[in-house]
Amino acid sequence: MNDIAKKVLSGDQRAIARLITLAENNDSAATKVMADIHPHTGNAHIIGITGVMGSGKSTLICELTRIFRKQRKKVGIIAIDPTSPFSGGALLGDRVRMMELAMDDGVFIRSMGTRGMLGGLTSAVYDVVEILDASGKDVIMVETVGVGQAEVDVIKIADTTLVIIVPGLGDSIQTLKAGVMEIADIYVVNKADRQGVQQAVAEIESLVDISCSEKDRKTPIMQTISKDGKGIEELVKEIINHFKYLEKTKEIEAQRRLRYEAELIEIIKKSLMNFIFDESKLKNTVEKKLDQISSKEVDPYTAANEILGKILK
Amino acid sequence: MNDIAKKVLSGDQRAIARLITLAENNDSAATKVMADIHPHTGNAHIIGITGVMGSGKSTLICELTRIFRKQRKKVGIIAIDPTSPFSGGALLGDRVRMMELAMDDGVFIRSMGTRGMLGGLTSAVYDVVEILDASGKDVIMVETVGVGQAEVDVIKIADTTLVIIVPGLGDSIQTLKAGVMEIADIYVVNKADRQGVQQAVAEIESLVDISCSEKDRKTPIMQTISKDGKGIEELVKEIINHFKYLEKTKEIEAQRRLRYEAELIEIIKKSLMNFIFDESKLKNTVEKKLDQISSKEVDPYTAANEILGKILK
Repeated sequence: MNDIAKKVLSGDQRAIARLITLAENNDSAATKVMADIHPHTGNAHIIGITGVMGSGKSTLICELTRIFRKQRKKVGIIAIDPTSPFSGGALLGDRVRMMELAMDDGVFIRSMGTRGMLGGLTSAVYDVVEILDASGKDVIMVETVGVGQAEVDVIKIADTTLVIIVPGLGDSIQTLKAGVMEIADIYVVNKADRQGVQQAVAEIESLVDISCSEKDRKTPIMQTISKDGKGIEELVKEIINHFKYLEKTKEIEAQRRLRYEAELIEIIKKSLMNFIFDESKLKNTVEKKLDQISSKEVDPYTAANEILGKILK
Repeated sequence: MNDIAKKVLSGDQRAIARLITLAENNDSAATKVMADIHPHTGNAHIIGITGVMGSGKSTLICELTRIFRKQRKKVGIIAIDPTSPFSGGALLGDRVRMMELAMDDGVFIRSMGTRGMLGGLTSAVYDVVEILDASGKDVIMVETVGVGQAEVDVIKIADTTLVIIVPGLGDSIQTLKAGVMEIADIYVVNKADRQGVQQAVAEIESLVDISCSEKDRKTPIMQTISKDGKGIEELVKEIINHFKYLEKTKEIEAQRRLRYEAELIEIIKKSLMNFIFDESKLKNTVEKKLDQISSKEVDPYTAANEILGKILK
């Protein structure tokens, strides 16, 4: 086994950071290491946390981490949001919270932009989850803004997904109706010291009633004030309850398989795109087809078919 | 040539809507028609409009449309945002504006969710742009929220991209710094009757100065109050100026080629994924690999390689 792989498995923070960078850059060295560490994955509880900007996701994650650490759990945090405090845009209060976390050797934080990733964001995030899982993290939290296709794809690999709502932000509920609903395992009404909490809870309840009528588990609605740490212990209990539920119903195995399937799809996509657009032989074909599309000699669908004919058996 | 193709080229609204639905559903009938209409594309001016929720994008688009229609231009509108007023969540004022547009035969409006698209959002949007372009629209406006990988990918095919900022929303400027900057051809400070306009303009100016120092065109910063129609005529002039600039510098040809390249990539991705995950023969292989990944016999990277070995020449 490779030296980096060994170090990652032992939880070495610098080795973890290095492997993530290699994977993000599509470095071929990463592939070997990813193969070595795979047998050690599948142990972490992956928690997706999604909500609009300003819903207090980052503060909530800090408070959740504090409690997980008290339970002696190792924590990984992946922030996918260019405007997340984890990416450097932190307010003073948040910064103090994050400094605390950054100095804790049992916590690994990685912030990822939504763009500029070779091979795409989703694939990169899956790699980071796999690496943190193998490195012995008990809990991995993935933070995304609740809008956008790539963001929702990312959240799909979570075992437990929290959807964060803020009272008085009509947008939040609208977003729910538009589709974030179906991915929520737990609703969190954060900033519950604001006006409109009861209304927000009632609105979510009516949505939950519709969508849960045929399931044996009703999606809970929790209230938190993350900046004061209120409601966080109850939330952690609910998160752990959901994990127990997944284990009891064997859903966790289906979930793990879905995660690996999503990972496999992303890797295949990435490899194929590399093959088609980086291979020098094929590059000429692609350029020629682009000329023909531009001059209207051929249409994109026919061109795509011809390119695929050259590479597929 | 197919009957639908002919009708689309003549601008028949129902045929356009039908072809879009076929394309969205990955219907094989669409492919033939898309090939037929391709030679008639490349004439529309594609305008990307991006900004956070609540920045007034939809109202702005209505006002822009009004002026384009006065200039006797045909207009296509593609709204990619589940919470966009074009998707049904309109306030009363907006609704009146949109009714007016919906009754105008020279305007075609399509709203697309960010999820649930077979073959992915980006590919679906490219198809709709191609269809509207072929149908004789002079201007095609694509509205997206300014966050998310898929959303930014979509905006890449625009000839002219407007980034909408609202004074006093710190978020807006933060988003800019995080990367929307580089895609802006024109900044629009909307809701310019609010406090903080001068500050917003100054902040954008300082960012523009950094990024434009080496270019021969400085990104203009326009001010509008879209709900009152103020500043819209000036904005339209600036949009047309940008198009003239693209033509003068021949950048428009490079831009068209980029658009076709992006389209080609998306179609290839879509076709390959269909091939790998829908073909019954390969499905067994994929399922077997998933079993092996779950039982840790093989890692996702090696599995992906083995699957690719089966299909690539």
